[in-house]
Amino acid sequence: MDPKLGRMTLKEWVAIESDSVQPVPRFRQELFRMMAVAADTLQRLGARVASVDMGPQQLPDGQSLPIPPVILAELGSDPTKGTVCFYGHLDVQPADRGDGWLTDPYVLTEVDGKLYGRGATDNKGPVLAWINAVSAFRALEQDLPVNIKFIIEGMEEAGSVALEELVEKEKDRFFSGVDYIVISDNLWISQRKPAITYGTRGNSYFMVEVKCRDQDFHSGTFGGILHEPMADLVALLGSLVDSSGHILVPGIYDEVVPLTEEEINTYKAIHLDLEEYRNSSRVEKFLFDTKEEILMHLWRYPSLSIHGIEGAFDEPGTKTVIPGRVIGKFSIRLVPHMNVSAVEKQVTRHLEDVFSKRNSSNKMVVSMTLGLHPWIANIDDTQYLAAKRAIRTVFGTEPDMIRDGSTIPIAKMFQEIVHKSVVLIPLGAVDDGEHSQNEKINRWNYIEGTKLFAAFFLEMAQLH
Amino acid sequence: MDPKLGRMTLKEWVAIESDSVQPVPRFRQELFRMMAVAADTLQRLGARVASVDMGPQQLPDGQSLPIPPVILAELGSDPTKGTVCFYGHLDVQPADRGDGWLTDPYVLTEVDGKLYGRGATDNKGPVLAWINAVSAFRALEQDLPVNIKFIIEGMEEAGSVALEELVEKEKDRFFSGVDYIVISDNLWISQRKPAITYGTRGNSYFMVEVKCRDQDFHSGTFGGILHEPMADLVALLGSLVDSSGHILVPGIYDEVVPLTEEEINTYKAIHLDLEEYRNSSRVEKFLFDTKEEILMHLWRYPSLSIHGIEGAFDEPGTKTVIPGRVIGKFSIRLVPHMNVSAVEKQVTRHLEDVFSKRNSSNKMVVSMTLGLHPWIANIDDTQYLAAKRAIRTVFGTEPDMIRDGSTIPIAKMFQEIVHKSVVLIPLGAVDDGEHSQNEKINRWNYIEGTKLFAAFFLEMAQLH
Repeated sequence: MDPKLGRMTLKEWVAIESDSVQPVPRFRQELFRMMAVAADTLQRLGARVASVDMGPQQLPDGQSLPIPPVILAELGSDPTKGTVCFYGHLDVQPADRGDGWLTDPYVLTEVDGKLYGRGATDNKGPVLAWINAVSAFRALEQDLPVNIKFIIEGMEEAGSVALEELVEKEKDRFFSGVDYIVISDNLWISQRKPAITYGTRGNSYFMVEVKCRDQDFHSGTFGGILHEPMADLVALLGSLVDSSGHILVPGIYDEVVPLTEEEINTYKAIHLDLEEYRNSSRVEKFLFDTKEEILMHLWRYPSLSIHGIEGAFDEPGTKTVIPGRVIGKFSIRLVPHMNVSAVEKQVTRHLEDVFSKRNSSNKMVVSMTLGLHPWIANIDDTQYLAAKRAIRTVFGTEPDMIRDGSTIPIAKMFQEIVHKSVVLIPLGAVDDGEHSQNEKINRWNYIEGTKLFAAFFLEMAQLH
Repeated sequence: MDPKLGRMTLKEWVAIESDSVQPVPRFRQELFRMMAVAADTLQRLGARVASVDMGPQQLPDGQSLPIPPVILAELGSDPTKGTVCFYGHLDVQPADRGDGWLTDPYVLTEVDGKLYGRGATDNKGPVLAWINAVSAFRALEQDLPVNIKFIIEGMEEAGSVALEELVEKEKDRFFSGVDYIVISDNLWISQRKPAITYGTRGNSYFMVEVKCRDQDFHSGTFGGILHEPMADLVALLGSLVDSSGHILVPGIYDEVVPLTEEEINTYKAIHLDLEEYRNSSRVEKFLFDTKEEILMHLWRYPSLSIHGIEGAFDEPGTKTVIPGRVIGKFSIRLVPHMNVSAVEKQVTRHLEDVFSKRNSSNKMVVSMTLGLHPWIANIDDTQYLAAKRAIRTVFGTEPDMIRDGSTIPIAKMFQEIVHKSVVLIPLGAVDDGEHSQNEKINRWNYIEGTKLFAAFFLEMAQLH
């Protein structure tokens, strides 16, 4: 075994600022470096590795940036064994020390058994756990119980740009021998009890621009005689959702699957200590008071969140500006069987209605910049059984069978293009804070997660 | 005369990034440099100069920054002459090339007779025009027709921090011999016709913070079960003003001086080409269609502008974040006889009403961070007459007698503390874009403005 293998640590991976969200050359260079480091790691593990050039990403402003390569890797091709393909991503959400991080987001820092750092749980930690599990077999000089493939990308947080085209192209090549697809890109719903995820919400991300002119105005010189773009935008954003979280866009709930008594029972079976959940989330009060309502509103009902405004005054201090052009950003988490293009039409029509009633002389433009489908799986597939057994072996408990309120569009995509069973096996605890300040993965989750993947390989070999 | 005098150019002053709005050490250092350069310039002109230490500025986050010194300077003390005190400020609004500036905001750049640069018209250009007028008498080896005093500060854009205390302290010292106070810190209302300003609006600047927790949330993991702070904030901001510009805060119009037929006639006398105004402003359509309505809504009615939101996602691109804590910023331009503390109470009560109806579990805090009084002058004072004559001499026309929608709180403050006549003599054209991107002063305005001030000295000597 290559003695350098021990050098691939989570600390080194977290140190790479592989932010795919902010479209600037510096972060893009970091993403390329991240993918090169990962390719090198897999090669040292003995895998055949291809780094696929993904071409350029067209940005809304007309410019373009190169997309980091996608890694396709293979380890073992024994026709008597099952082949499991692991998907992971090595890009991260933006992180800035000034936004409230207690430690440098790009320096993995252990405090009380928690490993803090951007990407620690989403998704660098779980990718390394899978690699560690494989290298454990290598270190013990044992044959791998299954053939392993890897597909690892660097644009997940930006909507997996161009990935679908690649998977489509590789359907009958790289994916031809694949039997199962495993993703590990979400969280448990408790601190200590593992879970298996069989569904995720989709996401439609909208931008609504209101423009008077490109320049800003001085509020003394023009305040009182303008249709101010911020007043229009605040009214538009305020028309989207009421104070109980109900989305006000007409028709938006039409295609949501009706709730049955049987489905309610599945939520009742799930372990969720509301008190612990509130404490670990540091949220005083949720919109709902029961476990079932909370789970349903995270998993099986759509939600709408307003993310922010581009072009207005956003710094500390005071500035007496009337922004001339502002862009509101919000997104709707979609559930089965909502349709992305129907939602786009409903939202656009609603905003146009609200805007036209204001008689504003400003220009409004609505665009849906991401449209990601929801996903739901058949939980009787072989690998769901194998994952449950592995969890019993490593953790001594039944898993929570859960859905995820987040969007993991590749789950849906793999199912639709590759036509193989997809499972999500999360490793992170409920309070890991993915996408937030002070993201972390617990040392315990990272190590037991590695064991879980190794046990999963063995169970898959038995069941296949 | 000191041969180095020719070196004090507007280009050099604009090159100093004297931003008083963003409370960071780098800009504060630039402000100190700016005040030192100005003190040096006045000393070379032969003035007695004192740079008054202003102590520290307490910031809302508990930190403090030093306030740049205020310059008090005197040139001539002939008891047979009148004494005119000139007020100006050398700090500027924030400016960032990326916000839509066509040239570097801190490199004065001439294009078609326009001198582009942050502070060119607000207020570095007018301060230098006054200094140039004084140095013209020096260069011609003529006695100054009046005694001149200067009070020059570096915190105007941040609300003239600590200035009032200084003026109060200097009331019977520096200001004891002062007969008239001239301010030149606003704009004409046309491209070519000069104006004299006899009133300004005040300003109450509000921050409304809505907080769930300090950390942000991931909209997949928490979307659907939270009282989202952005939804609360958008509803709060959306409750402030309707689409016709009418402020919705109960009681806010109670103290506004009733409109008389006589007052309407003063607006009718003013030259304002609406077509030209629209074109120079690059605004397709204003809220009102007549000259009188537009002037009244800029000068004698309050207005409310929403400036932006701190703490939400404000960058280009997409981010699926639920901001945990956001601060909305808006301000109300006050007119005679609105009262700052009454407005503070009305706004706070209104926001508390709106917020309580939402039954949100978030915490809301309203604070008024600036409260600046409106000002109105007696236009029969001597120096108003002198200014009119000087304008006739230099420009061959009667001035527009105007008010300013902007806030120049020191006008009100000087009148209340020093009890002397205050006049505003603007030099900049209507399209100068103060506080905006691509701020400029026309070369013509800068030079004719210098002549105007020289003529004003002569007229004052005659009338005093």
